[in-house]
Amino acid sequence: MNPATRLQEASGLQTGTGCGMHLLADLHGVAAEKLSDAELLDGLLRQAATAAGATILHSHFHGFGPGLGITGVLLLAESHISAHTWPELGYAALDIFMCGDSQPDEALQVLVSALAPQRHAVRRIRRPEPSSTM
Amino acid sequence: MNPATRLQEASGLQTGTGCGMHLLADLHGVAAEKLSDAELLDGLLRQAATAAGATILHSHFHGFGPGLGITGVLLLAESHISAHTWPELGYAALDIFMCGDSQPDEALQVLVSALAPQRHAVRRIRRPEPSSTM
Repeated sequence: MNPATRLQEASGLQTGTGCGMHLLADLHGVAAEKLSDAELLDGLLRQAATAAGATILHSHFHGFGPGLGITGVLLLAESHISAHTWPELGYAALDIFMCGDSQPDEALQVLVSALAPQRHAVRRIRRPEPSSTM
Repeated sequence: MNPATRLQEASGLQTGTGCGMHLLADLHGVAAEKLSDAELLDGLLRQAATAAGATILHSHFHGFGPGLGITGVLLLAESHISAHTWPELGYAALDIFMCGDSQPDEALQVLVSALAPQRHAVRRIRRPEPSSTM
């Protein structure tokens, strides 16, 4: 997002339309090999950001060792997507926070489809809190 | 966190004690100059991580231009801390996600104390969802 767009979005925030949506997704029963592959996860989060119409500014993924988990983040002009994984448990904690016109649910759909969890739970949190008068 | 510690933590997750806590904090009425200073925010998030007993792996902060907001993240062995700011509105969206023995509330205290918002709201979300049987 360029500064002008960001200011426009900020105006939306000021008039009470809110900044955006923060999705917290817990994925269970994911194949271990997907959750220990930093390159794969980096690529998936990039696909997710693109599907959401977001602008990628930076990414960094850290692996804890062969067969172990990954902790990584994609920094966006619209906020961020993060992934923290425990392959030994088949568990991934994702968060997708996007402001402006981007579509966090599109990003979530890409990630759930690719990681194919046996089950997942999503919590949707509006930012800032709805009671805010700014 | 080293891999052994991470596996130990994962065992905690498996036995139902949960991974950790995800704090979403909305800060309102923050002085604009604090919210457009990437170096200051990077330093503050580092102080916050240290206060929480977390291990910093990587940080990246992006400024949208003079007087405009910052989008940044500190990647931790225990997960992450992010900050997205709108100085023109005095608003900062923070999230602090920490697994293991680290203390996210200590990090929050450092950030709220330094940013001195006129008011703030915090939502606390346990990860994974409490109903999880893993």
